[in-house]
Amino acid sequence: MATIKDVAKEAGVSVATVSRVINKSPKASAASIASVTTAMKKLGYRPNANARALVSQSTNTVGVLVSDVSDPFFGTLVKAVDKVAHQHGKHILVGNGYHDAEEERKAIELLINSRCDALVIHSKSLSDEELIQYAEEVKGLVYINRDIPQLPGRCISLDNYKGAYIATEHLIRNGHTNIACVASSHNIEDVDQRLEGYRDALKANNITLSASYIEYGSPDSDGGEKAMTNLLTKSLPITAVVAYNDNMAAGSLSVLEENQYALPNQMSIIGFDDGLIARYLHPKLTTIRYPIQMMAEKAAQIALALSKNKPVETEPMVYSPTLVQRSSVARKA
Amino acid sequence: MATIKDVAKEAGVSVATVSRVINKSPKASAASIASVTTAMKKLGYRPNANARALVSQSTNTVGVLVSDVSDPFFGTLVKAVDKVAHQHGKHILVGNGYHDAEEERKAIELLINSRCDALVIHSKSLSDEELIQYAEEVKGLVYINRDIPQLPGRCISLDNYKGAYIATEHLIRNGHTNIACVASSHNIEDVDQRLEGYRDALKANNITLSASYIEYGSPDSDGGEKAMTNLLTKSLPITAVVAYNDNMAAGSLSVLEENQYALPNQMSIIGFDDGLIARYLHPKLTTIRYPIQMMAEKAAQIALALSKNKPVETEPMVYSPTLVQRSSVARKA
Repeated sequence: MATIKDVAKEAGVSVATVSRVINKSPKASAASIASVTTAMKKLGYRPNANARALVSQSTNTVGVLVSDVSDPFFGTLVKAVDKVAHQHGKHILVGNGYHDAEEERKAIELLINSRCDALVIHSKSLSDEELIQYAEEVKGLVYINRDIPQLPGRCISLDNYKGAYIATEHLIRNGHTNIACVASSHNIEDVDQRLEGYRDALKANNITLSASYIEYGSPDSDGGEKAMTNLLTKSLPITAVVAYNDNMAAGSLSVLEENQYALPNQMSIIGFDDGLIARYLHPKLTTIRYPIQMMAEKAAQIALALSKNKPVETEPMVYSPTLVQRSSVARKA
Repeated sequence: MATIKDVAKEAGVSVATVSRVINKSPKASAASIASVTTAMKKLGYRPNANARALVSQSTNTVGVLVSDVSDPFFGTLVKAVDKVAHQHGKHILVGNGYHDAEEERKAIELLINSRCDALVIHSKSLSDEELIQYAEEVKGLVYINRDIPQLPGRCISLDNYKGAYIATEHLIRNGHTNIACVASSHNIEDVDQRLEGYRDALKANNITLSASYIEYGSPDSDGGEKAMTNLLTKSLPITAVVAYNDNMAAGSLSVLEENQYALPNQMSIIGFDDGLIARYLHPKLTTIRYPIQMMAEKAAQIALALSKNKPVETEPMVYSPTLVQRSSVARKA
């Protein structure tokens, strides 16, 4: 492969001149730009992005950390960041953290070491203290789906409590009182916040239910199947279910269908996320909309602005979930 | 932020020594490793990944190009490559090409310029000639879902023709003869190959159908809705449908349900991919399995082996699709 020295020789200029042309320095003359460009083409020389990044201290890259890019929820997040990055002539570097502290730390270190201009980080397993340190180190770093009080303007999050409260209240308004909860077994704050929303909505409506109305599983369809099966086993007089997310709702519906429940008349269910799957479930899933695309676009815009020391509007950064009514909730007979 | 010079001063050694320690040169003495490590910690110095990559001519990164990471099909592909990369202590860099020649070219250039050790590229819009050039330039580059005869051992693909043939034949074996095709309007070879499989299976069974039995749409649920609506409008005596992929099958099912078709008795349908959605459709979708996870793992392994000049088994690289029977195909009454 041709080196920068070969290009300099071919073009009849110094290596420093070639470097200036490659890095688009204003000091490069029109004549040297022409001769270097011709020489580069002739020799098939490919300027090394690492070398250019070293000079400019920027890689033209936006870093994104998600839990698992194969989950459509995070796919939507990544695509939204990519859209904003593209608008700024940048590309993205994606890391998976798998909700594991060591994996999240490694991936963030790699992104920081790669000198990403801007970072949108979805971290659920690292402590506030550790994330504050990273935020102090990298000015263009924004956290998504996380609310750290010491980092105003650097965190974009969803009001999980409100989402679960709205979901539970919607079932209560439809006459249900024996409302079970299919919860996530992951040890992340979202789970506690949504459980609190469920419990507080019941309390505000003078409904008292034992803890046996709550069952846990992994936040996917398999976990939903497991939790729903456990609920049915307990012979509780349940008529409605609040699910942690759409995937768990999908698993729950699958178990109910196998057990010949007439849906939604014999059992109402409400999800959370409003992902692609919600529209294809049977019955079509009533759910809580998580505006992840809007939030991820905002996070990317703020991260890019901060990385360039541009002013950022100090607007509310906690987004509100909303109710999406489809066909999986019926009035209690 | 502390520089390498600050570290050298603090440690009482030369910049070259610091560089040797950072790059784990065998020439670095135990004493200099100790003093430099202590100084780096004290000053909070973060070795620059770009600088290290420049020295080693390697970024420890596997590059992946997909069409759109927010599509679960490509999410699965990316996750499989990430899994193999992790096993080799590497991380991934992901680019989206959106089935657009200019976007694909830009993303491949970025990945090559970033000196990725290995590349797994899903390109549908660039010519064989252009892709051959890239493959000649980068020894650790492997194409997935593409079969270029001049690049044996560098391409992993699926037998699309066979998949569509099996799908159509399955419907014929169930007594159907008036079999419509919901095809993709994208201008990529997969579309032609699957259409050919559909046509040849009909021909082999002495079934002649007019071109009006084929309708086109974008390869997503919206496209499936559009194509299915157009088919219904034509009042053809259709009893079964071969869909380009599961997403188009989902859109088709949605239109059929709205039009009060009893499924699968009044209309059988078969998908392609066996993505997550297939299990949640109603009826559960009979489909053709695209072993994308297995193929992507293989592609990553080969790319990493080639990047290190390791021998690669010259085994068949064209994978076979298989039939997955669920509940969306019924025997013709």
